[in-house]
Amino acid sequence: MLYTSTEPNRRTHRQKLVAWLEQPAVTKFILVIIILNAITLGLATSDRIVAETGGVLALFDDLVIVIFVIEMALKLYAYGWRFFLSAWNIFDLAIVAVSLIPASDSLRVLRGLRVIRAMRVLSAVPQMRDVIKALLDAMPGMGAVVILLSIVFYIFAVMATMLYGETFPQWFGSVGASLYSLFQIMTLESWSMGIVRPVMEAHPYAWAFFVPFIICTAFAVLNLFIGLLVNTMQAAVEEEQDAELERIMGVVSEGNARVQEQLVEIQQQLTALKAEGDSKNGG
Amino acid sequence: MLYTSTEPNRRTHRQKLVAWLEQPAVTKFILVIIILNAITLGLATSDRIVAETGGVLALFDDLVIVIFVIEMALKLYAYGWRFFLSAWNIFDLAIVAVSLIPASDSLRVLRGLRVIRAMRVLSAVPQMRDVIKALLDAMPGMGAVVILLSIVFYIFAVMATMLYGETFPQWFGSVGASLYSLFQIMTLESWSMGIVRPVMEAHPYAWAFFVPFIICTAFAVLNLFIGLLVNTMQAAVEEEQDAELERIMGVVSEGNARVQEQLVEIQQQLTALKAEGDSKNGG
Amino acid sequence: MLYTSTEPNRRTHRQKLVAWLEQPAVTKFILVIIILNAITLGLATSDRIVAETGGVLALFDDLVIVIFVIEMALKLYAYGWRFFLSAWNIFDLAIVAVSLIPASDSLRVLRGLRVIRAMRVLSAVPQMRDVIKALLDAMPGMGAVVILLSIVFYIFAVMATMLYGETFPQWFGSVGASLYSLFQIMTLESWSMGIVRPVMEAHPYAWAFFVPFIICTAFAVLNLFIGLLVNTMQAAVEEEQDAELERIMGVVSEGNARVQEQLVEIQQQLTALKAEGDSKNGG
Amino acid sequence: MLYTSTEPNRRTHRQKLVAWLEQPAVTKFILVIIILNAITLGLATSDRIVAETGGVLALFDDLVIVIFVIEMALKLYAYGWRFFLSAWNIFDLAIVAVSLIPASDSLRVLRGLRVIRAMRVLSAVPQMRDVIKALLDAMPGMGAVVILLSIVFYIFAVMATMLYGETFPQWFGSVGASLYSLFQIMTLESWSMGIVRPVMEAHPYAWAFFVPFIICTAFAVLNLFIGLLVNTMQAAVEEEQDAELERIMGVVSEGNARVQEQLVEIQQQLTALKAEGDSKNGG
Repeated sequence: MLYTSTEPNRRTHRQKLVAWLEQPAVTKFILVIIILNAITLGLATSDRIVAETGGVLALFDDLVIVIFVIEMALKLYAYGWRFFLSAWNIFDLAIVAVSLIPASDSLRVLRGLRVIRAMRVLSAVPQMRDVIKALLDAMPGMGAVVILLSIVFYIFAVMATMLYGETFPQWFGSVGASLYSLFQIMTLESWSMGIVRPVMEAHPYAWAFFVPFIICTAFAVLNLFIGLLVNTMQAAVEEEQDAELERIMGVVSEGNARVQEQLVEIQQQLTALKAEGDSKNGG
Repeated sequence: MLYTSTEPNRRTHRQKLVAWLEQPAVTKFILVIIILNAITLGLATSDRIVAETGGVLALFDDLVIVIFVIEMALKLYAYGWRFFLSAWNIFDLAIVAVSLIPASDSLRVLRGLRVIRAMRVLSAVPQMRDVIKALLDAMPGMGAVVILLSIVFYIFAVMATMLYGETFPQWFGSVGASLYSLFQIMTLESWSMGIVRPVMEAHPYAWAFFVPFIICTAFAVLNLFIGLLVNTMQAAVEEEQDAELERIMGVVSEGNARVQEQLVEIQQQLTALKAEGDSKNGG
Repeated sequence: MLYTSTEPNRRTHRQKLVAWLEQPAVTKFILVIIILNAITLGLATSDRIVAETGGVLALFDDLVIVIFVIEMALKLYAYGWRFFLSAWNIFDLAIVAVSLIPASDSLRVLRGLRVIRAMRVLSAVPQMRDVIKALLDAMPGMGAVVILLSIVFYIFAVMATMLYGETFPQWFGSVGASLYSLFQIMTLESWSMGIVRPVMEAHPYAWAFFVPFIICTAFAVLNLFIGLLVNTMQAAVEEEQDAELERIMGVVSEGNARVQEQLVEIQQQLTALKAEGDSKNGG
Repeated sequence: MLYTSTEPNRRTHRQKLVAWLEQPAVTKFILVIIILNAITLGLATSDRIVAETGGVLALFDDLVIVIFVIEMALKLYAYGWRFFLSAWNIFDLAIVAVSLIPASDSLRVLRGLRVIRAMRVLSAVPQMRDVIKALLDAMPGMGAVVILLSIVFYIFAVMATMLYGETFPQWFGSVGASLYSLFQIMTLESWSMGIVRPVMEAHPYAWAFFVPFIICTAFAVLNLFIGLLVNTMQAAVEEEQDAELERIMGVVSEGNARVQEQLVEIQQQLTALKAEGDSKNGG
């Protein structure tokens, strides 16, 4: 952090830049660019529109990349190392970096990746950030069941490859193929008519492998969901109950305080009475 | 509101008409007409029945439209501008208006639209109104996740069009086609056997696009559902807890009040005792 | 109830019969017969087993029917009109009555109905009765949404028949066919690849009819489920909270009672003190 | 338990062995072996990798079995009959026993069973044990509905076999085949396009059998899930409420105790006052 001590002038430059970057006009301009780019990327998928607009879409696309690169450069300069403290900044930077990968027209896959630029909407709109944060917050509670599910998947995939790999190589030819087929079976898509019935023609007891798999994974997914739900619910109920507790505490404490005040007064009266009696006695 | 000051006579006419329109006999007659019309519209789909009844169904249909138009006209006259304060009135008016679109026999689509007249059952039965109101009330809490889901859908649709549009134009030829195909994949219908396995034959790594899409949308829909559930639950629990709180408060306050009364009595006794002592002393 | 006054003798016969019918040995014997019959009915579906056992299964089946008829006759005689107060008795009687319908071997449907005799397990085992009661108790809360769903189904079915009945008579040829097809679409089975994509080849905008239908019904079913869940949950939470309330009330009341006792004692002491002072003054 | 009295020496041997078996180094070594074996079993499904590694995988596999057998033998000796008190030990023993079944290369099924050795991860990692324990704990509450579902399945399977067994032997030829087909229908996989529509061509009213079956099982599964959820939730809420109750109790009791202390003081003051008055009177 050399600049903090030696370059006070440059630092104020940076602070001014931060203020400028964070003003609504700038953030809204970036958001509009993101949304327009999302639309033009959608339009660019139509060969007819591309032919009609004659290079305007590609030009706008290049302009957007230039704007994004400048934005990122300014942010990196303005925030310094603190830029990387926000996961959203890293998210934006990664997306802009991916956009810079040269995409020749022959490489459709790389061109496809340009669309993820539209994902910057998620980081540019605060409400969307909150929703995603809420979704990610829900995940840790799912960890243990997800690991369990992965182990079950792996074991079943290896077994399926050993048992049915030779007779049905298109579905269970390798552990990878089996993992994909089991995922399909877990989603219940064509599991019986498409896969298990044909397999049962060669291996009559295949149902004893697949039906337990379906029941196990359905039960695990169910528990994943219940865990998630109970966690969310509990947090909501807890908040509710804390408020209730607070109010009950308030009423009880207040009532008590008033009673104790009265009792102190009574004790003072008694002390006065006693003092009077004593003085009379003594007098 | 000219009529309020200049036309008191006409206003009472209107009030009488409102009373007449709102009396059970009239609302029930309209409901019976709606239900009968729903049945005849169903019967009219059978060419055999239409041939046998010989125009009776079409005649009844015309009669129903006339009744509905008269009902709407009377309501508009009776309620004046206040007619549009109720969303249900606007709903009814829109449905009747749609029924008036001339439907030649060649235009099956427009004839199909006549059936939505049966939807007036929803506005004519108060219980149905309540159910729909409850369903609509549940929606705002879903807003953020629905928007997130839409963005995810759009980004994946544009990517799918770029990546697989050329090789599989029937599924991913345009952004619209991709949106429909991705909706189908989200519902898990034939996603693997019907779409992803064929796609994987041309693009071996297509699973890396579709499996994350399925997991993401399933997770988002799950959260949509959990949000909805927690909201509904919380409202129910809150009500419950408010009643509990009220009762606890009551018991605590009542107990406190009685104690404080007794304390006040004691203080009065003490004051009396003191006064007595004082008077003795002074005497 | 003639017999109550004129036939005291016969009444005690009946009471003895009730006691005999309700003793564990008899109810368990009936349960064993039901279970054995369920097994033999299963075995009777195999032509090989029927051939090998040579009429033993049919004989046992006839014997079971005789036992059931005698059981019903005895119960009807023993309980009199009170027999019909229990829904489970009516359930049993209906099942036994259905079994008596003569089933020629050519009428497979009627033979199939004999299997519902196995359903008597549900009424013969008290735990099963409780589960079914719980399931039925959950239903009333679902009423409104089920009716709404039925209306939506009917309207969409009539519309589908009008719009696609001519081009796709196998799926939407009549309102009945459309209702079945829409039920299939609601369960998401082959909705797109099997039905909507073929329909879209003739009617390109068919997705605008089916996608909203899927979303609406999914949302309605979701709310059906949430309603059911919240009801069940609320009942459980309420019980919990009543117990909590009771305990809080107890603690608060007990504390209060003890304080008030002490206060009464203090008041008595004060009265005594005053009386003493008075007597001194008076003396 | 002969050894406890007659063989004190051997017992300490055992205790030392238990301590050695339970030390982190040993349990972690076993866990690493399990995970490595899971990976090698996965690799062994690829003929190419098996050919390239030339018997190393098979050798490692044999080594793993030897290690597991020694581990089990040591544990059996160290814990004695107490070994069988832990369900996890029995689980491990059963898995190792299954691995020892001689698996000739022609018997793919038996070779497939070797993979379940990877399931020892579930018993070797404490967190996984907890997750599985939680999943199993959730089961008893499901018992009644599972039994009900089984009865419904059996009855429908026998009926389906009677009704459709002759015309569609591939789906409903035997009770077993019907059970499998009904399970497929319950998961909604190809139920209509694949099974019910073809059946309806021969038996036009088949929908009256299958649609109620789908609705009944969906409703039962829903209730299974709701029961599970309410149980889990209730346990969570109960804990929450107990904590709340504890805190309310604390506040109420503490307030009460302080008031009562003050009241006792007041009573002492009054007694002193009275004694003084008495002494004065008496003096």
